[in-house]
Amino acid sequence: MSAIGVFDSGVGGLTVAREIIRQLPDENIVYFGDTARVPYGIKSPQTVIRFSIENILFLLKHDVKLICVACNTASSLALPVIRNNFRVPIIGVITPGAKEAVYASQNKRIGVIGTKGTIKSRTYEREIKQLDPKVKVTAAACPLFVPFVEEGWLSGEVVLSVARKYLKPLRQAGVDTVILGCTHYPLLKPVIQEVLGKGVILIDSAKQVAFEIKKILASEDLLNRGKGGRHKFYVSDNPEWFSSLAQRFMGKKLMNVRKVDNV
Amino acid sequence: MSAIGVFDSGVGGLTVAREIIRQLPDENIVYFGDTARVPYGIKSPQTVIRFSIENILFLLKHDVKLICVACNTASSLALPVIRNNFRVPIIGVITPGAKEAVYASQNKRIGVIGTKGTIKSRTYEREIKQLDPKVKVTAAACPLFVPFVEEGWLSGEVVLSVARKYLKPLRQAGVDTVILGCTHYPLLKPVIQEVLGKGVILIDSAKQVAFEIKKILASEDLLNRGKGGRHKFYVSDNPEWFSSLAQRFMGKKLMNVRKVDNV
Repeated sequence: MSAIGVFDSGVGGLTVAREIIRQLPDENIVYFGDTARVPYGIKSPQTVIRFSIENILFLLKHDVKLICVACNTASSLALPVIRNNFRVPIIGVITPGAKEAVYASQNKRIGVIGTKGTIKSRTYEREIKQLDPKVKVTAAACPLFVPFVEEGWLSGEVVLSVARKYLKPLRQAGVDTVILGCTHYPLLKPVIQEVLGKGVILIDSAKQVAFEIKKILASEDLLNRGKGGRHKFYVSDNPEWFSSLAQRFMGKKLMNVRKVDNV
Repeated sequence: MSAIGVFDSGVGGLTVAREIIRQLPDENIVYFGDTARVPYGIKSPQTVIRFSIENILFLLKHDVKLICVACNTASSLALPVIRNNFRVPIIGVITPGAKEAVYASQNKRIGVIGTKGTIKSRTYEREIKQLDPKVKVTAAACPLFVPFVEEGWLSGEVVLSVARKYLKPLRQAGVDTVILGCTHYPLLKPVIQEVLGKGVILIDSAKQVAFEIKKILASEDLLNRGKGGRHKFYVSDNPEWFSSLAQRFMGKKLMNVRKVDNV
């Protein structure tokens, strides 16, 4: 009974795991959160690639049939380099998010927000331009958003004024669609929406990612025929902290989060 | 020509390195910043101990005669456990800071601020109580301060209102002395002073740490007799980012920061 492997630098990927579970309730899932080395967003491509390979090798020990890189930074920096090194299909979160944004935008002005690593890599921009060269992309790194979410600062004047500062270039560019290019950002949706205005569409790629996974498993005849998938959660540090944050990201508590050394 | 080894989770320890250089200009220094795994403040004792041992083993390869743990989290969580495992003397930042605070406080009410790991460990509290059991210690974790400093948000309304929130219990306790229990916090001194009021003494342990190192080297006859120490800086990731932040922490640019794998 092979599983879908999912990894992230920490807890953020749980927003993706939740959507996979919703769309594919009969699939087994093995999730790995690299909480000993979190965050990835401030680290170099070279280091994020090394960490990602180690995480993939960990998941491969657990009989996975497909791997989802549920982390925008790793998807941006590592996936283009390592995708073809492994036999299992590896799905990132960039292409699905880019597709949905291009589909949603009416005025062909799309905003992208993410970690420094994600924005600096310009991977979203390249993906969007490949889908539609006419789109104008405005990108902004929002490095304080992850600490805010992890500290539970999801609203209030402090978060609002930081958001106003970060999102100013997107407002000035008149974007009608914004990709939430970090799995933590969906938790700040109300704040981001307030700053950008109600008319702007916020793209959270989780749904589209789960849909792509479903399509690939179906086309390769890899869908689980059993009933009721089992879900295992591993972290490289702080299982209790991970469990407590899971409430925020998954909407439910996680029992039996196991600490492992992935390297 | 043995050197003084210094390690930190990242750039913060440069505030300590600067003071060592000022007080001991003829000593060689080997600095290691674990920028691939930064920050330590949110990680478990077990993981911080593992990382600290790896950092010490890296420094020992560079012929060091004394090691300074220039990181409050590692000093709090790892030092009590590993101090006696190695032959070279290992100096942390907790005891010097605690000593200075007990000496400075008139009303015997001392505040401590630091990362979650440092505050949760209660190491400062234990050290202070050992020096003077009558002191009342009020501690507060300030997890957003490190991201603020690393993003260069050192003043302004956002940082001020976060500081007001974090420091409220210290104000309520009427402390007259506050230990800046994280090497990033000296950069927020103006903000912290504004919130706490001018009468409150802020203790930045760097000076006292350098003084202790000098004392130990002198007593063991290990002071360098040559002139003009050489300083080497190693990091596990992002040497350019480290160099650029060095300006903020050291007051000068660092050339030739080298990236190494410490594990």
